[in-house]
Amino acid sequence: MRKTYRIGILGATGAVGEELITLLQERKFPIAELRLLSSERSAGKQLVFDDQSVTVQSVSAEVLKGLDLVFASAGGAVSRQWLPIAVAEGAIAIDNSSAYRMDPEVPLVVPEVNPEDVVQHCGIIANPNCTTILMCVAIAPLHRAIPIRRIVASTYQSASGAGARAMAEVKVQAQAILDGASPNVEVLPYPLAFNLFLHNSPMDGSGYCEEELKMVRETRKIMGEPSLALTATCVRVPVLRAHSEAINLEFAAPFAPDKAREILRHAPGVMLVEDFDRNYFPMPLEATGKDPVLVGRIRQDLSHTCGLDLWLCGDQIRKGAALNAVQIAELLMARGLL
Amino acid sequence: MRKTYRIGILGATGAVGEELITLLQERKFPIAELRLLSSERSAGKQLVFDDQSVTVQSVSAEVLKGLDLVFASAGGAVSRQWLPIAVAEGAIAIDNSSAYRMDPEVPLVVPEVNPEDVVQHCGIIANPNCTTILMCVAIAPLHRAIPIRRIVASTYQSASGAGARAMAEVKVQAQAILDGASPNVEVLPYPLAFNLFLHNSPMDGSGYCEEELKMVRETRKIMGEPSLALTATCVRVPVLRAHSEAINLEFAAPFAPDKAREILRHAPGVMLVEDFDRNYFPMPLEATGKDPVLVGRIRQDLSHTCGLDLWLCGDQIRKGAALNAVQIAELLMARGLL
Repeated sequence: MRKTYRIGILGATGAVGEELITLLQERKFPIAELRLLSSERSAGKQLVFDDQSVTVQSVSAEVLKGLDLVFASAGGAVSRQWLPIAVAEGAIAIDNSSAYRMDPEVPLVVPEVNPEDVVQHCGIIANPNCTTILMCVAIAPLHRAIPIRRIVASTYQSASGAGARAMAEVKVQAQAILDGASPNVEVLPYPLAFNLFLHNSPMDGSGYCEEELKMVRETRKIMGEPSLALTATCVRVPVLRAHSEAINLEFAAPFAPDKAREILRHAPGVMLVEDFDRNYFPMPLEATGKDPVLVGRIRQDLSHTCGLDLWLCGDQIRKGAALNAVQIAELLMARGLL
Repeated sequence: MRKTYRIGILGATGAVGEELITLLQERKFPIAELRLLSSERSAGKQLVFDDQSVTVQSVSAEVLKGLDLVFASAGGAVSRQWLPIAVAEGAIAIDNSSAYRMDPEVPLVVPEVNPEDVVQHCGIIANPNCTTILMCVAIAPLHRAIPIRRIVASTYQSASGAGARAMAEVKVQAQAILDGASPNVEVLPYPLAFNLFLHNSPMDGSGYCEEELKMVRETRKIMGEPSLALTATCVRVPVLRAHSEAINLEFAAPFAPDKAREILRHAPGVMLVEDFDRNYFPMPLEATGKDPVLVGRIRQDLSHTCGLDLWLCGDQIRKGAALNAVQIAELLMARGLL
């Protein structure tokens, strides 16, 4: 008989939480019991799993008892408060927040890139930042062929990265502007409809924002290249739920675009989307709801002999968050670690 | 008595044409006569200049006679057909199309960057591509302090770059999506509302599109650096009329961000918009309708000792097109060349 698991989802009512529920169902994850957990505020809400209504429970030490696996996507403070308790109770925790990502004891895993890192954990495994996951899926196979020396990334990040309320707000703002009114700003720091702004995560003295530094630090950790040179500019754009990235790569040696294309055509988690005749390349609208990272427009960098430029789009809530977390759980199962 | 000029605007009914009319008025350009010219289709239309109604005339050799200055913004084919005739009739032509930009006999001018180039012309002076103008205004003052060795640019280009009909279409698309319908596509190649796509100008065998190659070639010509290393990824985003650009610069030597900031604070055509505490930087909504290029988020590139990252926004129709053209005319006047 196939082993089944008692699973908890912390932050079940959020955008990523709901996608986790959908994915566990879609991918027929072997579930013995599913506990949907949230803050006091959302407790009591009914969600549907496998055609059955499940009541969302308020998180407590009691309700974390007896779980095999906990997915957390309720922010860093909630993870820091409850995951050590869940782990002490015997669960493995896969954390979507940034709380533990740079902890040297905690593996930071993109299953297509560094599956072997999943082995060495102390109960918590971290799910990387969304833009970082999407980029790593696309560049790691190239890095394996010829080492990457430097990355310049510019992102085009959707509203979903700021949560379900931001997604709703950008639509309300768009309607206001279309009606000739001023857009209201509550969740987002500035109007996003028909506008865009630099990612508003906190800045440090370097002039980089936290989102950009996550890309730098997490990419280094995932790729196992602690001194990889990387700079990023992270931008929020009026798109609902898929992120896009323009990536410039410098390699240790020239990299023929056709060779890169061939590698990416067979790379796990990647879908090559390139039709130069039709000017058809990855678009966020088409990446939405899809599992793979769409990659295209691979070209020899005109400014550097050893450079390549490429473009990608990926669903921020799926591969950028929930799907990657479920894949980590599947990886643990496949290796007999769960 | 101050000299006044007989001026023609070819493409007067387009987005850039209308902005030219507004700017000539705003800046009190000394006009003796203003002829608004267009294709047969728009002829007869009434436009307002200085509180007077002006009838748009169909362009012909006859109507180009006796003009001192012609602004052209009706596309490359129209410029190629009519500007040589206007010049033969004694006018100086300032061309917004890409028809003559790379012609070695034709100066390509951003008044803040290479005003001296305006002197050597054979009747036609070219106005550069919009993204190129905005970038050059921001980077040329830095290049004068320490030479730039390489540029990696990613753009966030508004609908206005595809014309007034594209601006209208993105709004109609947004309304359709908000109403739960499918967005219609007529002017733009793909839905742009709540989406984005790589710039759809024709591609050459290099994998770059024409818009990107314009940035490469025109920047080299304007900056007088024929072998400047530059790569660009040009992206159309659902913003109405201001372009944004994430620019990574490598210099010949380290460039302190504070030094760059100080130079840009005093650079012509630049407005420094930087408040790291409030996370407030240039946004297209705020660049709209403004003359200067808004520049900010200047930071030491984490990936390169001699690198700087910066971010800019500029009104695509104003400094990206009409304003730059009017400034070229003002430059000709100031130098007694008109």
